[in-house]
Amino acid sequence: MKPQMRVSQIFPASYRGDVTGAETPGHKLLLRAGYIRQVAAGLFHLGPLAMRVLHKIEAIVREEMNASGALEVNLSLLQPGDLWRQSGRLERYKHDGIIFGGKDRKGSDLYFAPTAEEVVTAWAAADLRSHKQMPLTLWQMDWKMRDELRPRMGLMRGRLFRMKDAYSFDADEEGMRRSYQVQREAYARIFTRMGFRFISVQADSGAIGGKGSAEFMALTNVGEDTLLNCDHCDYGANVEKAESIFAGFEYSNESKPLRKIPTPNVRTIEELETFLGISSRQMVKTLIYVADQVPVAVCCRGDLTVNEVKLKNVLGAGVLEIATEAVVTAATGAPVGFAGPLGLKSSLRLIFDTSVKDMRSFLCGANETDQHFLDVHFGRDLPAPVGFHDVHTARAGDRCVQCNEGTLSESRGIEVGHVFMLQQGYAEKMGVAFQGADTKPRAPWMGCYGIGTTRCLHAMAEQQCDEKGLIWPEAIAPYQYAIIPAAYKEGSVAKIAADALFERMSQRGDEVVLDDRDGSFGSKIADAELFGFPKIIVVGRKAGEGIIELVNRMTGERSEVSIDSV
Amino acid sequence: MKPQMRVSQIFPASYRGDVTGAETPGHKLLLRAGYIRQVAAGLFHLGPLAMRVLHKIEAIVREEMNASGALEVNLSLLQPGDLWRQSGRLERYKHDGIIFGGKDRKGSDLYFAPTAEEVVTAWAAADLRSHKQMPLTLWQMDWKMRDELRPRMGLMRGRLFRMKDAYSFDADEEGMRRSYQVQREAYARIFTRMGFRFISVQADSGAIGGKGSAEFMALTNVGEDTLLNCDHCDYGANVEKAESIFAGFEYSNESKPLRKIPTPNVRTIEELETFLGISSRQMVKTLIYVADQVPVAVCCRGDLTVNEVKLKNVLGAGVLEIATEAVVTAATGAPVGFAGPLGLKSSLRLIFDTSVKDMRSFLCGANETDQHFLDVHFGRDLPAPVGFHDVHTARAGDRCVQCNEGTLSESRGIEVGHVFMLQQGYAEKMGVAFQGADTKPRAPWMGCYGIGTTRCLHAMAEQQCDEKGLIWPEAIAPYQYAIIPAAYKEGSVAKIAADALFERMSQRGDEVVLDDRDGSFGSKIADAELFGFPKIIVVGRKAGEGIIELVNRMTGERSEVSIDSV
Repeated sequence: MKPQMRVSQIFPASYRGDVTGAETPGHKLLLRAGYIRQVAAGLFHLGPLAMRVLHKIEAIVREEMNASGALEVNLSLLQPGDLWRQSGRLERYKHDGIIFGGKDRKGSDLYFAPTAEEVVTAWAAADLRSHKQMPLTLWQMDWKMRDELRPRMGLMRGRLFRMKDAYSFDADEEGMRRSYQVQREAYARIFTRMGFRFISVQADSGAIGGKGSAEFMALTNVGEDTLLNCDHCDYGANVEKAESIFAGFEYSNESKPLRKIPTPNVRTIEELETFLGISSRQMVKTLIYVADQVPVAVCCRGDLTVNEVKLKNVLGAGVLEIATEAVVTAATGAPVGFAGPLGLKSSLRLIFDTSVKDMRSFLCGANETDQHFLDVHFGRDLPAPVGFHDVHTARAGDRCVQCNEGTLSESRGIEVGHVFMLQQGYAEKMGVAFQGADTKPRAPWMGCYGIGTTRCLHAMAEQQCDEKGLIWPEAIAPYQYAIIPAAYKEGSVAKIAADALFERMSQRGDEVVLDDRDGSFGSKIADAELFGFPKIIVVGRKAGEGIIELVNRMTGERSEVSIDSV
Repeated sequence: MKPQMRVSQIFPASYRGDVTGAETPGHKLLLRAGYIRQVAAGLFHLGPLAMRVLHKIEAIVREEMNASGALEVNLSLLQPGDLWRQSGRLERYKHDGIIFGGKDRKGSDLYFAPTAEEVVTAWAAADLRSHKQMPLTLWQMDWKMRDELRPRMGLMRGRLFRMKDAYSFDADEEGMRRSYQVQREAYARIFTRMGFRFISVQADSGAIGGKGSAEFMALTNVGEDTLLNCDHCDYGANVEKAESIFAGFEYSNESKPLRKIPTPNVRTIEELETFLGISSRQMVKTLIYVADQVPVAVCCRGDLTVNEVKLKNVLGAGVLEIATEAVVTAATGAPVGFAGPLGLKSSLRLIFDTSVKDMRSFLCGANETDQHFLDVHFGRDLPAPVGFHDVHTARAGDRCVQCNEGTLSESRGIEVGHVFMLQQGYAEKMGVAFQGADTKPRAPWMGCYGIGTTRCLHAMAEQQCDEKGLIWPEAIAPYQYAIIPAAYKEGSVAKIAADALFERMSQRGDEVVLDDRDGSFGSKIADAELFGFPKIIVVGRKAGEGIIELVNRMTGERSEVSIDSV
């Protein structure tokens, strides 16, 4: 990269004022500072400053991937439909609408890579022959296309985005776990080097499949995901998957008799607390869902919330919805608000959350209009459940399951990286068979690993910005220094000193920008702050005495220093 | 890039024997050495060795483009159909079949970039406002897709290929010429640095439009283009466009009377030479073409060939074809073989080639069956032509038009770069208007500049290879050294010495490959030669004495040197 630039040459020029169509601070700033330009929904041009940031981000990724022992390749950006039919994913991706492609002139369907499991596994089917070739991790950095229904937030959820994707092949499960761990550690180094505040969390692995996955989340105020992380250990998880130790409750040891009490029009947990004066932790909440068209009842402690992602996984359901009023009435015999595990039709499947396990003398709906049961005991009033499942949502303030000491706190994050253990599914479907040490053919164990590099650029813009503009960490800043002469008039002391400094720093190889425009000093400072260069050098009144002012964009610190010390 | 590699880890492994579906030596070697793998016609994966070569090629391009003052950007790979309708090129590209795309989920048409004039000009329409922003050259390096009818020769004419494309914007024509010259000089440096034997030639600018263009041609035996270049000066041109000074002829000063002579069934120049015993240089050859459905007659000296590309340009024709027998008969009144400028219907347009200008006492067809005219004189037997056009094909042995001293010789080449002056056509069509110094709006003058980087990789494979394998120049070699131990058995002197050397060179940052496989020495040498590493270090019998053999892949030179001197 050429290390120097004059601001008059930067294309496109920055602009003042608000921008339309951008929802988040980072998105607005990237537009105003000319880093990106929208071509169509979710499609962008990248300007020269964005390219410099992207090159630095990708150079860090490349170094760490190569250092991890992975081999850089490039997989065809256009993928034959036949490979997607082989893996069985074409219909699903087409149904979701995110796969984009067309027919070529010979009538074959080609798709713009939304991901590359199919093509890389097909390559392995052709060229991976022996256990001696493994462990093997292939990686590439290139565009992906996902035709999002609602592209938004600039490069965050664009339709075209750059991604580093890697795929590991191992002879056995243990090898897969080792390769996964190597990549996971490389990812931590990568995001640390880029300058991110990030956490690594357990994640629901969604559409990719496979078991065991972690997300790397950049912490921002505008993240699409809600995260819980421990203030004591390194535990962190997407709220969709987070586990926790919830606050307990001292249930009475007294064995009062079961009573059915009238609760006229009192339906919600809050209404019951007020009406009866007892804690929600003494109540069992019973919700009716419909999982793949079959009603199911879910019980959890009254103060907790059912986590539908967890519930869906427990049920192995494709579609899970909360039941309509009519379904609730048909299933429980009572309107919404009066369901409970006691006296429910035995045909209805009943899921108990782990929070219910130790409850005694609790309140629950009586499956009759305006009636609840009080002082219910498992084993006395109804059979003790045969199993419990974690189907409630963990929350800030809960204790950490990993260290049992820390407290979870909530933050929002943007997923910048994701690592998965894919197991053998793809390899088996695509017919990859290598010869083991015992000469028998078998399918390799795979992992896949992604980092969104254009997304990293945008995530950093969201994570580090203020009302004045972007604030790049040095590791990925487009230029390290901006020189702002107080005036840039021919013959002025400031111009002469600024030109000389620019020349000297350029010679030395510093990444430096000179604001050579003949605008106001204020507008130049404003642009330097908008662009987000880490260090601003003001060449002002004292330039004649060899003194300049150095401003740290991140901390706002200002100091007068000798021009020779820069 | 990680500088070291063990051959056992290279994926995919090389293979022996012939490959199917590859026509050229370079294509076969790239497949055998695992540099490329075909996914579908014209679509390839690139292996780790190819990626290293490609990175080096692209790094040279990046350095020179940045040094030229151009700004690196990235233009959306998917382009809205509306921009192509605005430029008026969509129908043409669709008709040619090379544009590939589809409908997105909202029903809009998106095309995978076959080139980027439309999107970059539309960007300029939005962000280029003042003459102060120019000269401006934007460049990018990314994939392009052209759905070729007959993809062939691997990366040479693949459907997906990587290209550096640049676009210059200037306030006036002089500026455009300067920007063009800057890029042209950068191109010469780029191909020189890559290590190409190449020439720069004038070219027909084809479908891109605009006036003034040059091609950079890598010289190979398998090139798609035929070139003529001077052995004395730097003149070179594609044969489609080459000019030359053809050998003259002493026409008699005697003014013999015009005669019509019988030439029974004697039609071709060769037959006439034999039949009459006169030189073809004394004959005017007259060919009938159909240009956009209108017949036209073309006269050139008998020993020369009509150049249809030149003729098409002179006529400004869209479609040019040689006339059918029926059209010839209708147009000249005689069958094929007896046309001539004398006595031709006056309604038929007549084009005279420059070669006819000084001819006297010549022979030509009489537009009657089995009849020719002899001793024809312009100004006496028929009116002297009002103008002459260069519509013949220059050929090896002709004198150079540029230096008037050298002789042209013929070679074959692969186009690796192309520079064009686009003028104002795109800017006007896409509505780009900048404010001139006089505050009036006007359209910028543009240029466009392309280098096929994956094509460079393949072109070098064709230019530098032998029956043993690829031969990379150091500047773009994937690794500089291959260490081949004569044996790689635990405890052997060769293994110990090879490991130590590999370790030392790796530490020092050398790009070095160690063949750590336990195959035969011969097969390892064969692989190193196939892969094309510039220097092979054989660690053999004398390793114990600290002596190794250094083999230069390009020259074949072998020398014994001290292990410490490497």
